[in-house]
Amino acid sequence: MIRIGIMGYGNLGRGVEAAIAHNPDMELAAVFTRRSPDGLKIATEGVPVFHCSEAEAHKDDIDVLILCGGSATDLPKQTPEYIRLFNVVDSFDTHANIPEHFDAVDASGNKYGRLGLISCGWDPGMFSLNRVYASAVLPDCATYTFWGKGVSQGHSDAIRRIEGVKDARQYTVPVSEALDRVRSGENPELTTRQKHTRECYVVVEDGADKERIEREIVTMPNYFSDYDTTVNFISEQELKEKHGGIPHGGFVISSGKTGLNGEYDNVIEYSLKLDSNPAFTSSVLIAYARAVYRMSKEGKTGCVTVLDVPPAYLSPLAPEQLRKSML
Amino acid sequence: MIRIGIMGYGNLGRGVEAAIAHNPDMELAAVFTRRSPDGLKIATEGVPVFHCSEAEAHKDDIDVLILCGGSATDLPKQTPEYIRLFNVVDSFDTHANIPEHFDAVDASGNKYGRLGLISCGWDPGMFSLNRVYASAVLPDCATYTFWGKGVSQGHSDAIRRIEGVKDARQYTVPVSEALDRVRSGENPELTTRQKHTRECYVVVEDGADKERIEREIVTMPNYFSDYDTTVNFISEQELKEKHGGIPHGGFVISSGKTGLNGEYDNVIEYSLKLDSNPAFTSSVLIAYARAVYRMSKEGKTGCVTVLDVPPAYLSPLAPEQLRKSML
Repeated sequence: MIRIGIMGYGNLGRGVEAAIAHNPDMELAAVFTRRSPDGLKIATEGVPVFHCSEAEAHKDDIDVLILCGGSATDLPKQTPEYIRLFNVVDSFDTHANIPEHFDAVDASGNKYGRLGLISCGWDPGMFSLNRVYASAVLPDCATYTFWGKGVSQGHSDAIRRIEGVKDARQYTVPVSEALDRVRSGENPELTTRQKHTRECYVVVEDGADKERIEREIVTMPNYFSDYDTTVNFISEQELKEKHGGIPHGGFVISSGKTGLNGEYDNVIEYSLKLDSNPAFTSSVLIAYARAVYRMSKEGKTGCVTVLDVPPAYLSPLAPEQLRKSML
Repeated sequence: MIRIGIMGYGNLGRGVEAAIAHNPDMELAAVFTRRSPDGLKIATEGVPVFHCSEAEAHKDDIDVLILCGGSATDLPKQTPEYIRLFNVVDSFDTHANIPEHFDAVDASGNKYGRLGLISCGWDPGMFSLNRVYASAVLPDCATYTFWGKGVSQGHSDAIRRIEGVKDARQYTVPVSEALDRVRSGENPELTTRQKHTRECYVVVEDGADKERIEREIVTMPNYFSDYDTTVNFISEQELKEKHGGIPHGGFVISSGKTGLNGEYDNVIEYSLKLDSNPAFTSSVLIAYARAVYRMSKEGKTGCVTVLDVPPAYLSPLAPEQLRKSML
């Protein structure tokens, strides 16, 4: 049994707990929280909850610690810190800061003889794998990533900060005409506006100025001004009933040529359709925790990413069984 | 520069030659043939052509030899034999015999200190990767593989062997209703007949009995009797004009549940649309030749498959560049 620890019990932490239940070779060993552990009731019976300050006392009870904090402030500190005690996996997703985060985790992991896998999930994660595979197989290809249809937490939060807004949900939606053009192999140049639209469902306070709120949304720099945005005002009840989930997904499409004179077209497409973004992300984290456990047993230390992991390491099946049943 | 050798100059060998031209870190060092080397004119200027019996004399001039023979009789002999002299990559695709082939190549590779990668291409190959990734991330998922629309050489050959047939082309076509049901996440049980249809384009000799030929095709055991097959009789001219290519492709679709009580549905889909089957297969072989070169430099010997190769090893980009630009 691979003993998994969870650091942080939000959407992602609960997702990891659920994912462990789908993997018979894994068990949840402990949950760590910044809150008071006494007040935290988790879903799995008989698993202890500790304050994060107690982590060191449990370093020999856990094979891989999954860090379930946020990328903005938690993970840049937590991952290099906890790798001193544990093999770790995180879902650090601030693309621009990955090199810096990698170096910090690599240095700490090598110093303390532990292995860390960063930036795991679906983007970065499964989508990254597909970008790398496609560009290696079709060296001249153009690769396009589309997100959605799915809920963007960051954009939903940005709307909630507007005066007069009680609650909001924002969906990122890929433009189907753009998808079709990319799939056709024409390698179009697409602006931000041509790739995605943004759909907002907004609940306002009684008597709020809807015109002003809509204007503030669609003109908001960085978040909405570069997109075609639609704003729908709905009741609190409707938001709860129809927009309570956190679905997401997307597409990685690569098109490139083969043949001595580039005479053949090829399109490679990978897509995800997910009812719950955090539940799927957690499932990826847990599969890679298995790989980290195995690579660590082989003596690997420092930092790796999904790009460094042989696919067979993710599976509970033995290599000969994989070759027989899946190759 | 990675020095590539090609063993066998058919569709696949010519595809490998073309794929090398798309990869600036590779060069074609030599082509080996069972025919008379004097009669063989290859597309690349200044590259020597040798008889296959001369391979040993060139073992130090080639980093990876790509074996471009067939799976039925060539590769089971060639791969364990040539790995005594070279690192090798093959496209062995008789799924049922992969374990046996692996063992033979592994034993020979370990004995002679060389590395071989077998069963490379798109199925087995890229499709295998996607079956393994999906089943690791969604342990309870159902995975479906569909092939086509594309030309099946084996089925085309089977039709050509019928008396009165001059030429033929057979397309394997996935049933779109089956694709839709799988994508919907309903996890249907599908018979052979429900997954694919077979479309045949047949040119007959003057005065041949078309009714008999059609009956022989649609009732042919193993090849056609389990499928809904349509037979179209066309002229030699039309076959040449409209069915001269070797397109192929297909879909790997996995659907599985996440969440503590399996309350969330997820669909993962990978698809390929290829103008030329051998040209794309060759492009995959060449990307994995890069990985074999690198793993061999690290001291790895014996046999591996695509499931054993870290994705980063396929790319000409350095790991830090991959993390920065593609993760």
